[in-house]
Amino acid sequence: MGQREFDEIASLFRPLTFGAEEAFELRDDAALIRQVPGQDLVVTKDAIVQGVHALESEPPFVLAQRLLRVNLSDLAAKGAVPYAALLAVAWPAEWTAEDRTAFARGLGEDLRRFDVCLLGGDTVSTPGPFQASLTLLGRVPTGRMVRRGGGTVGQTLLVSGTIGDGWLGLQAARGEGDFSAEDRDWLASRYHRPEPRTDLAEEVRAACSAAADVSDGLLADAGHVALASGTGCEIDLERVPLSPPARRWLARQTDRAAALVSLATGGDDYEIVAAADPAVAAQLTRSGGEAGRGWTDIGVLAPAPGLVAHMSGQPVQVSRAGWSHLE
Amino acid sequence: MGQREFDEIASLFRPLTFGAEEAFELRDDAALIRQVPGQDLVVTKDAIVQGVHALESEPPFVLAQRLLRVNLSDLAAKGAVPYAALLAVAWPAEWTAEDRTAFARGLGEDLRRFDVCLLGGDTVSTPGPFQASLTLLGRVPTGRMVRRGGGTVGQTLLVSGTIGDGWLGLQAARGEGDFSAEDRDWLASRYHRPEPRTDLAEEVRAACSAAADVSDGLLADAGHVALASGTGCEIDLERVPLSPPARRWLARQTDRAAALVSLATGGDDYEIVAAADPAVAAQLTRSGGEAGRGWTDIGVLAPAPGLVAHMSGQPVQVSRAGWSHLE
Repeated sequence: MGQREFDEIASLFRPLTFGAEEAFELRDDAALIRQVPGQDLVVTKDAIVQGVHALESEPPFVLAQRLLRVNLSDLAAKGAVPYAALLAVAWPAEWTAEDRTAFARGLGEDLRRFDVCLLGGDTVSTPGPFQASLTLLGRVPTGRMVRRGGGTVGQTLLVSGTIGDGWLGLQAARGEGDFSAEDRDWLASRYHRPEPRTDLAEEVRAACSAAADVSDGLLADAGHVALASGTGCEIDLERVPLSPPARRWLARQTDRAAALVSLATGGDDYEIVAAADPAVAAQLTRSGGEAGRGWTDIGVLAPAPGLVAHMSGQPVQVSRAGWSHLE
Repeated sequence: MGQREFDEIASLFRPLTFGAEEAFELRDDAALIRQVPGQDLVVTKDAIVQGVHALESEPPFVLAQRLLRVNLSDLAAKGAVPYAALLAVAWPAEWTAEDRTAFARGLGEDLRRFDVCLLGGDTVSTPGPFQASLTLLGRVPTGRMVRRGGGTVGQTLLVSGTIGDGWLGLQAARGEGDFSAEDRDWLASRYHRPEPRTDLAEEVRAACSAAADVSDGLLADAGHVALASGTGCEIDLERVPLSPPARRWLARQTDRAAALVSLATGGDDYEIVAAADPAVAAQLTRSGGEAGRGWTDIGVLAPAPGLVAHMSGQPVQVSRAGWSHLE
């Protein structure tokens, strides 16, 4: 570790430990993980590469928040409360000190917002594009992590929030697609700064038998839940919850079925798809919450393996990459 | 996650969970971390970038092992026993399926050797060079992690194994430097596949008050221990343990003091520098072990801040990057 790395860890990242003793001020070879009696530790790790999982143009502040948020989404779907993070970051030569500071500032803002402390990690330089990985630790009451595979036939399939905004948002952020200026801004922001459903973790844990985060696309991730649960699933595309900008986009499409399939397979939604007993699911969908943030009943775990998507009672052919790999 | 990533995780990485239940066959959004009563969890995370921390020419099999080993070295210096790992890997376009398989094979061989299971992670592609980060979890008896800052004035400074082989090994691996063919091979192999001192973790825990792994260079890392302990340190360069190839190299150098400083600041040794009470330290150095693998008394934690290096009783000027950043 050279002088620059030493100074940079001190100035950029040490403040992000928020004084957590187990981080040892990022001065040691390792950190401790605090254990809490009656709680299990849950861990996830995701990486991003600029230009691959993030646009070339994405500013460092936003990149940092996306990196944390995609990991937070994984924990939320497991019913876990986030606790601490480790970061490995590879700075490209063209990033200035201001870029690196903006990255740390974006990360710090979100770590504080989601009550996560930084425990450690590594900073390196790379001749390639910006790249980073985050390891996120969370907690659930012992034995209560919600698995993908806990669903049973007859359970209701639920999804949180709205679907398709990530996919439309990527187009909006790239300046592609046909949107009003206002919708473009809103959708692009949904792509850049997804809202992990940390607020739903407790409901997932209390009410759902199985859950996954919606990152690959709703149909793919619902399929993962069904496959892991040893069931199939039936989804009514007309019931997939859409935001007002997504509904306006849909109204402009000529092939409504194909457009709905695109929204349901696009990915990057960072919502939660879950299975719950019908009575419990009915309660969840009624509880509502903020408009466009609550649970929607989109279908059922069915006995026959595989996924069937319906529209107006008719099966719809689903063959996009988001789903095909489960067949 | 597309079909390729899905298949690749199944074929390359699922076997590396070694059936650990808490990995959920790498099929879920997150893994559990098994907790053991009476044990603390210790965590570290290091990243490597090909061409930066690893030679361009380093084969995938070797890269994987280096990545794991540098992390194992951190845990060993904390007195921790390794338990589980999470991996984020960015495949460059030019890596073939054989390269990726070789990486997983190298990693798997070493995970098994060091009794570590894979719990999760992420595989992505990158237009840049190969890059990966590993998060390593280990265990120590509660409250017994060995810190950098636990040393006190008057304690003996110890180092494990031999020093300078990593630095000479990098030159040897690059085809630089003046070595016999046999020494070149031996040194290059020390660079490519460092031997983390997992075997010493229990001794570190039982006998040492402070410890760090020797990755930045012996003088820098001894300095870290002293600084964190609120002491200075005095090191006798003549007592720094050298391997037979390093001794042969040293004998060919005209400026012996400068050469010793180079060996002691070069880094990549992945040995352990530790502080222990003199009587305990004397026992450790006597216990010996395999030639070139045991502990050597190289100096003392001194009251005056800073590092003083001696040779034949005379102070030696130390100003290389490996040390300078502590001043």
